[in-house]
Amino acid sequence: MIKVAVNGYGTIGKRVADAVACQPDMEIVGVSKTSMNADAYVAKARGYPLYIADLSKRADFEDAGVPVAGSVAEMITKADVVVDATPGGVGLKNRPMYEQHGVRAIYQGGEKHATAGFSFNSSVNYDEARGRQFVRVVSCNTTGLVRIINEVDRAFGVGKVRAVMVRRGGDPGDVKRGPIDAIVLDPVTLPSHHGPDVQSVLPHIEITTAAMIVPTTFMHMHAVQMTLKRPATREQVIELFRAHSRIGLVKGPSGIRSSAELKEYMQDIGRPRSDMWENGVFEESVSVVDGTELWLFQAIHQEADVVVENVDAIRAIASDVPAAESIRMTEEALGFVALG
Amino acid sequence: MIKVAVNGYGTIGKRVADAVACQPDMEIVGVSKTSMNADAYVAKARGYPLYIADLSKRADFEDAGVPVAGSVAEMITKADVVVDATPGGVGLKNRPMYEQHGVRAIYQGGEKHATAGFSFNSSVNYDEARGRQFVRVVSCNTTGLVRIINEVDRAFGVGKVRAVMVRRGGDPGDVKRGPIDAIVLDPVTLPSHHGPDVQSVLPHIEITTAAMIVPTTFMHMHAVQMTLKRPATREQVIELFRAHSRIGLVKGPSGIRSSAELKEYMQDIGRPRSDMWENGVFEESVSVVDGTELWLFQAIHQEADVVVENVDAIRAIASDVPAAESIRMTEEALGFVALG
Amino acid sequence: MIKVAVNGYGTIGKRVADAVACQPDMEIVGVSKTSMNADAYVAKARGYPLYIADLSKRADFEDAGVPVAGSVAEMITKADVVVDATPGGVGLKNRPMYEQHGVRAIYQGGEKHATAGFSFNSSVNYDEARGRQFVRVVSCNTTGLVRIINEVDRAFGVGKVRAVMVRRGGDPGDVKRGPIDAIVLDPVTLPSHHGPDVQSVLPHIEITTAAMIVPTTFMHMHAVQMTLKRPATREQVIELFRAHSRIGLVKGPSGIRSSAELKEYMQDIGRPRSDMWENGVFEESVSVVDGTELWLFQAIHQEADVVVENVDAIRAIASDVPAAESIRMTEEALGFVALG
Amino acid sequence: MIKVAVNGYGTIGKRVADAVACQPDMEIVGVSKTSMNADAYVAKARGYPLYIADLSKRADFEDAGVPVAGSVAEMITKADVVVDATPGGVGLKNRPMYEQHGVRAIYQGGEKHATAGFSFNSSVNYDEARGRQFVRVVSCNTTGLVRIINEVDRAFGVGKVRAVMVRRGGDPGDVKRGPIDAIVLDPVTLPSHHGPDVQSVLPHIEITTAAMIVPTTFMHMHAVQMTLKRPATREQVIELFRAHSRIGLVKGPSGIRSSAELKEYMQDIGRPRSDMWENGVFEESVSVVDGTELWLFQAIHQEADVVVENVDAIRAIASDVPAAESIRMTEEALGFVALG
Repeated sequence: MIKVAVNGYGTIGKRVADAVACQPDMEIVGVSKTSMNADAYVAKARGYPLYIADLSKRADFEDAGVPVAGSVAEMITKADVVVDATPGGVGLKNRPMYEQHGVRAIYQGGEKHATAGFSFNSSVNYDEARGRQFVRVVSCNTTGLVRIINEVDRAFGVGKVRAVMVRRGGDPGDVKRGPIDAIVLDPVTLPSHHGPDVQSVLPHIEITTAAMIVPTTFMHMHAVQMTLKRPATREQVIELFRAHSRIGLVKGPSGIRSSAELKEYMQDIGRPRSDMWENGVFEESVSVVDGTELWLFQAIHQEADVVVENVDAIRAIASDVPAAESIRMTEEALGFVALG
Repeated sequence: MIKVAVNGYGTIGKRVADAVACQPDMEIVGVSKTSMNADAYVAKARGYPLYIADLSKRADFEDAGVPVAGSVAEMITKADVVVDATPGGVGLKNRPMYEQHGVRAIYQGGEKHATAGFSFNSSVNYDEARGRQFVRVVSCNTTGLVRIINEVDRAFGVGKVRAVMVRRGGDPGDVKRGPIDAIVLDPVTLPSHHGPDVQSVLPHIEITTAAMIVPTTFMHMHAVQMTLKRPATREQVIELFRAHSRIGLVKGPSGIRSSAELKEYMQDIGRPRSDMWENGVFEESVSVVDGTELWLFQAIHQEADVVVENVDAIRAIASDVPAAESIRMTEEALGFVALG
Repeated sequence: MIKVAVNGYGTIGKRVADAVACQPDMEIVGVSKTSMNADAYVAKARGYPLYIADLSKRADFEDAGVPVAGSVAEMITKADVVVDATPGGVGLKNRPMYEQHGVRAIYQGGEKHATAGFSFNSSVNYDEARGRQFVRVVSCNTTGLVRIINEVDRAFGVGKVRAVMVRRGGDPGDVKRGPIDAIVLDPVTLPSHHGPDVQSVLPHIEITTAAMIVPTTFMHMHAVQMTLKRPATREQVIELFRAHSRIGLVKGPSGIRSSAELKEYMQDIGRPRSDMWENGVFEESVSVVDGTELWLFQAIHQEADVVVENVDAIRAIASDVPAAESIRMTEEALGFVALG
Repeated sequence: MIKVAVNGYGTIGKRVADAVACQPDMEIVGVSKTSMNADAYVAKARGYPLYIADLSKRADFEDAGVPVAGSVAEMITKADVVVDATPGGVGLKNRPMYEQHGVRAIYQGGEKHATAGFSFNSSVNYDEARGRQFVRVVSCNTTGLVRIINEVDRAFGVGKVRAVMVRRGGDPGDVKRGPIDAIVLDPVTLPSHHGPDVQSVLPHIEITTAAMIVPTTFMHMHAVQMTLKRPATREQVIELFRAHSRIGLVKGPSGIRSSAELKEYMQDIGRPRSDMWENGVFEESVSVVDGTELWLFQAIHQEADVVVENVDAIRAIASDVPAAESIRMTEEALGFVALG
């Protein structure tokens, strides 16, 4: 059993914890929080030992009926692998602690590539993660782009990618972040940093990206265009995607044409936390113009798509399970089914 | 086994169908839709026989891989009770069909009181529903008001209720409805119709209400004020609510102070569709001014709170199970637990 | 001519500056900013001398083509009255500077009553402001409540006020603040601080308030209920409001029933910055229940209603113009007309 | 004086009416409405004779204090040119009326190209509109695309345009339209219809477009990419745009990076109705990748950019004023100034 600690039990951390807990070869030895709130009740209900960053806040938790197992430093000593799901930039500060204890760590996309020295995607470079102490699972948007670009590149060769990402302003439970009524350029300067981030996993891909933030909470939406080195039909591209377990096809007769309806569908089919771990590629949008210019829309659930990559990343650095087997195990444990 | 058909498999219908399906004394004999969309895939995945309003649209469903069991008229003949969850006003048109087949029907709050002739709440008038062919479960907002008013009235006597309801603009998956950036008075004239609707269940309660619509999707929020006939402390009121299984108390240490965070908590504790069947009364908001003026905030999940009332309403008209036993059965089957 | 400086040229400051600049007895001697942005271009276009808080940032402005006249401390020396429109809490820190220079100052509602020692409303206590060095114009919401409560109290006597305030999440140009999809209780505890703030101007009024924040930007909306000491009809109340130049009546045939439509109307009739300086009382909502319980909805434009009070407050402390004459002058200069 | 009637005094119509009314060579002979609402008060305040579609509704207007001048058919007889700003599709139904009276008409982009047989943009094909009875001003998005594509094409040659349009869900005053919390693909299928619409004005341009709808009200945002036939630097492109009076450059030091802040700036500089008649090209976003791939962001004010094109279109079909002179006259009358 791989002993896993989740440092930062928030939006991503709580999802990774549940995904880890249901794997046959992993167990949760602890999760951590910095201050008392509803997530602590959730950790308690799930039976995860709760560690806290600052023991002087112990009373805040215990007065609320949530027992505290100890400090984060103590939690680290019990783990084979730490999933660092702390806010962006904090992971870098945690690195000396992980080094000192000789514990492996999985970082999230909020950290820079250099913090881990290796950027991970299950379908691209699982084997190269072997033996590493630190691995970074790239961000939700980058993961979503990498999945489809890699598939299309292997099948038809990708000459150039242009992607416009329309990002949700905040997660559903984040009531402080805006905007309320604005389309915000983030950043104003072009291209955005997302292209280089894709190249941290797929260095040979030429890609230009633009990004905006809008007042929604459910999912990001990407308009992606790729020039193909070898001609393809839309049917060929759709078949390619259908064969990839982490690329979901949103069918035309579903009538789903928005992030909100897609999230509702995840909810209706009983996914935990209504999570969509797959890319949501809109089948009707897949188009090939002039034989070599592929266009499509895809929805990316910012809270969820990296969860399954985290589970694989744990196996990649802490077991000898091969890539395809890890992907299969991860998905079987979560009860993946083809959508639609 | 009570055979239940759900006429109108949408936001409310799909929730009632699942709640019915898990009851030990009920079964779903069919659900109906008017046109093909994602809900039809959900019905198929759940194994509910799908009937359609207009058989000329059969090919739309079957081409999408969803078998059609027959027409709505056929579905009705197989049921002991129909839950009519069609859009507001359609229920009235359906009434002759139910009368012709001699089938019992549960209406929703979108229908007028007169359509059923009896407005229902599990805690108030379950016994009076016995033997009726038609019963109307009052709307989400009315159900939420009735639950707390009735409890406070029984314990302390309620002189006068004043409630301001801030309503969500549309359900999460409803992408056509607004507003986007407005607070809409609905209606502009005061008082709103919600007061008389409460009186359809609690005729002796004096109540004045005002209602607005805002650009959110998760829950309604009520600011409620009641004058008490007998003095009470906030602690007494809180204990009263704690003892009622359908009034949930949102605890202070949870840090939850919004509709969105409360919805997220429902999601995290694993509720199906993140549903909150209970009123969400914010414990810290419960205040008694001058000994006899009670104030509180409560969140009402528009898609969910009436679901459990529908299940009880079915038993009330089609079984001899007593009220308290029905409430217990409904909640045990759904896995109700105390929140927090 | 009263020489006025505006310390903090932002949402409120830029509006007050323009309102002051068009008064026959006042002039703007300077406005201040802390960092370069679009407002600096606006100040330049308006011809207001621009002072900055930190002279080390001078190049940021001048490189952008905006000349800097000097430091805030220099600006203060040129003024008879400073309108302090800095963010909440900063005004308190500025007080020693104003005391040192012996300059009068008008604070905004983001400061506590104690910072100025006197809370102002043109219709209530203009004369009492005479001779004071510091005066605080109460917040937008409080100003809006005070205007109607005071009128009703004078005419019929007010026994008790209950108000629920549904507040906009952020101003239209503020793209960082949320919520995006939530109704946030602010504060969760009841009653809210708005009641005591009304009492800082109208100490004898008994009032209980509740407040929420919603994802809109245009205006706040209040549902207000007052018990009257002497019976009144809705027509009498409407006439009372019609006679007050800062209480606007939104007429039924306009079809306006939301904050957004009301803002659009201000825009259409050519108001500068689409500002609504008046309370927007919805005429159709004004209702009297049982002869002595008044209900109404009013919209309050958070960016605008205090602007005219600021202009009067300047006259109250720095001239011998009587209250009624100041109100008339302020409104004539701005081109007030009856709405509708 | 060209006598102009505005058929449909709504979002676009009221703006065109005001722009026409201030032109030295035009006058408004009437505006029309179908039902009473706030816009009728605005028309009355502006002094525009108000005609109504259905004279049986005359009392609705007159009871509200708004005089009715007659029927739409009567209005038509008084005009040289009708600006048809009715909802999409109604213009086609109105065409026989215009033909019968031999009156010229300007259609909006909600009508199909075939309804007018000629699609207009002031900078592209003013001269070709001469002598035509019907001209269609293309939609706000198409106008915004045509302006920049045409300029870049003339200077450097455009090989291929790819544009992703993120559209506002509804206008600020439109409280019924959503979405509230969703990114909606509109349409799901790719490419969208906007490319062919650009080709109705610029037939030789190869263009592919994708469009989404998001929950905002202020402006559309475009991410535009053009391949250039001849290399250019970003500075050359910026100079090109700076020289075009209807392409506004949003300067970096303004700190403006969203639709909302840009709208606020229009408000602050005193534009009527906060209208931005120009494209809002974000100067910092203008980038040239590899010498021939131009990228930029532009904001398009959906209510405003076509207003100035309508004024020119009137002159094009009803005067002998040359294009450059019309553009100059339109802008001088409106008080255009360089932004920033």
